[in-house]
Amino acid sequence: MKRLLLLLVCASACVSGLAARAAAGGVGARVFIVERSSASLAVYDLAERRLLPERITGLGDLHHATMTFAPDLRYGFLATRSGQLTRIDLESLSVAGTVFTSKNSIDNAISQDGRFLAVAEYVPGGLSILDVATLQTIKHFPASFKRGDQEMDARVTGVVDGLGNTFVCVSIEAAEIWVVALGAAGPEIERRIPTLAAMPYDAMITPDGRYYLVGHVGTDSVSVLDLARLDAGVRAVSLRDPAETFVRTTPVKLPHMASWAVARGQVFVPLVGEKRLAVVDSATWTFARSVPLRGHPVYAVRAPSEREVWVSFSGDADDSFVQVVDTETLAVTRTLEIGGRIYHMDFTPRGAHVLVSANRDNKLVVVDANRYEIVDSEELRSPSGIFGVWRAFKTGL
Amino acid sequence: MKRLLLLLVCASACVSGLAARAAAGGVGARVFIVERSSASLAVYDLAERRLLPERITGLGDLHHATMTFAPDLRYGFLATRSGQLTRIDLESLSVAGTVFTSKNSIDNAISQDGRFLAVAEYVPGGLSILDVATLQTIKHFPASFKRGDQEMDARVTGVVDGLGNTFVCVSIEAAEIWVVALGAAGPEIERRIPTLAAMPYDAMITPDGRYYLVGHVGTDSVSVLDLARLDAGVRAVSLRDPAETFVRTTPVKLPHMASWAVARGQVFVPLVGEKRLAVVDSATWTFARSVPLRGHPVYAVRAPSEREVWVSFSGDADDSFVQVVDTETLAVTRTLEIGGRIYHMDFTPRGAHVLVSANRDNKLVVVDANRYEIVDSEELRSPSGIFGVWRAFKTGL
Repeated sequence: MKRLLLLLVCASACVSGLAARAAAGGVGARVFIVERSSASLAVYDLAERRLLPERITGLGDLHHATMTFAPDLRYGFLATRSGQLTRIDLESLSVAGTVFTSKNSIDNAISQDGRFLAVAEYVPGGLSILDVATLQTIKHFPASFKRGDQEMDARVTGVVDGLGNTFVCVSIEAAEIWVVALGAAGPEIERRIPTLAAMPYDAMITPDGRYYLVGHVGTDSVSVLDLARLDAGVRAVSLRDPAETFVRTTPVKLPHMASWAVARGQVFVPLVGEKRLAVVDSATWTFARSVPLRGHPVYAVRAPSEREVWVSFSGDADDSFVQVVDTETLAVTRTLEIGGRIYHMDFTPRGAHVLVSANRDNKLVVVDANRYEIVDSEELRSPSGIFGVWRAFKTGL
Repeated sequence: MKRLLLLLVCASACVSGLAARAAAGGVGARVFIVERSSASLAVYDLAERRLLPERITGLGDLHHATMTFAPDLRYGFLATRSGQLTRIDLESLSVAGTVFTSKNSIDNAISQDGRFLAVAEYVPGGLSILDVATLQTIKHFPASFKRGDQEMDARVTGVVDGLGNTFVCVSIEAAEIWVVALGAAGPEIERRIPTLAAMPYDAMITPDGRYYLVGHVGTDSVSVLDLARLDAGVRAVSLRDPAETFVRTTPVKLPHMASWAVARGQVFVPLVGEKRLAVVDSATWTFARSVPLRGHPVYAVRAPSEREVWVSFSGDADDSFVQVVDTETLAVTRTLEIGGRIYHMDFTPRGAHVLVSANRDNKLVVVDANRYEIVDSEELRSPSGIFGVWRAFKTGL
């Protein structure tokens, strides 16, 4: 009887095991694509170059959804605008837990040691720290600011994993950067450092983990914090081109900072409403020059070799195109037509291919990055963000 | 009857499946450690911080054995000095195929697209290109050189994956670098480029995939090839310190080039028989300065942040120690005592920990890279090379 039971248990475990195995190759080749309008994730297998039959659904409001991956590659985590955080089993491609940390969250990050997850929240504003293993919130840091005598809620955004097993984020209305340490006593806000201007709206960390860059609403200056020298505080970097005589009447608006590329000691910043990239020297943090483009840039993504930055555009006339900028000569070397309304681009980790979501065309397009040729194209529903599991091994992703 | 058969088949598949699952967490946390004298690999789980019970045995002569990983993380590949190439299933931690490509091989590499494996061989000398899926050799490039009128066998070493889905390697006696293209027509030696001196003995590629550096027996010069400008050929870089007045009588010997660290635009070279690192500027490829050390350096390993290089030593008086060099000030900031005869060090991908093999002490030691403290220590048999699966996502590893 015992033996029969074992067989039956095994039969059921085995069938699901075989199904998962039959579905695709190894976990390292899996790329998750946000399908924004259907609250789902599609899964692409890079090794087999095909869309997998599994689709993960019921994930909440996926505008600006970000997905991070635990370094042991068992789980991915998707944070959403509806406050829902979903844990996804990377082997079975199914939901392995759902929690709501707030009513509206914007970003998440996993600590260097893989034990803690941080979620940046708008409503109520704050930062939640979760245990990756249990999905329990072990600490919540509320954000607030003072208007006159009144204490009001502030929003938190731009959370990233920092060196030394920290998280770094920014409180928008309080205009301060938080450095959160994950020591033996549990998570603590170790430092609160004021930004240089009001209303920081987004932030990023350089790929080496050294600098935290904060954008501000209504200005073309960025606050830069050297995370190795917190006591020095932030400095301002202007993205204005001194050679430009154009008097701007449109409001200044910077794009989300996940769209900035750091390559060969330079930061490439797509400027909303201008047909140029601003190039900033990351040793001196001064404006270096502009790179003229065919349209208004949205995303700048560096090749792993750092020899190229690929740029996408807004506007019907330009949003099917990608321009390739040589990071040495700072010239546009190629213009590729890929698909309608490009929302996101990502290089494979050693740079062989670029994955592109063409939202209007409902397609994921795979481009050979050496031959600049489309090698695959898959039908998706309103594709947006693209997240490969190798992000687990990169600081700030 | 059919149903019973299915149950039985499933029972056996299921048991092994459950065993594999019970053994450890996700594949992303697995680190393989060469146990040199017992021809085996031990497996450490970084997430659970423990040695796994599985041990992979019968792997051949593991002197200078290198392990590479397919980008879908299904398999790892171990090349050995006895010509044996073993494919290892990263999920079940068992041997999934053994082939002999030669009588004596030295290095292997996986192409950017994950489809081809290259093995560099001494006897008979050449380069074998294998299909990763079938383990079949699809092309063998023999190496030879001329002595007078006689055609003689040459050895091949230093094979790495290059940008544009290529392999790069060097033929020792022929003193030439090969660039192997993996185009539609199959693997072909696209270019043969002479090195500047005789007897190249080892080579490496910079982490951005741009430069291929070749060391030569008996000189302190290195051949540098810019892979983006093959027509320019190689140039020589001297590691001699012009400020040193010491007249050397010992033969010049450079260590294996996997031990060179590239960080913050500088190459840190451990010099055999000298108590210093040579620092070379990687923009101009000129000698910059020396960093004095406590002993004769063996390995220099960069932190992912590029803010530190960790150095190990040879000789009983020094080989338990690691010195930490600040890559900005170029000063030694710390000296850590870790364990007897340190053979290999590797940072976890976001830099939280350093894995160290202490060969004389038969230990794998895990060091917290932020606190400089030992956090775990495991008994192993004659541990040597350390290989984490994240190498799948790095050029040249």
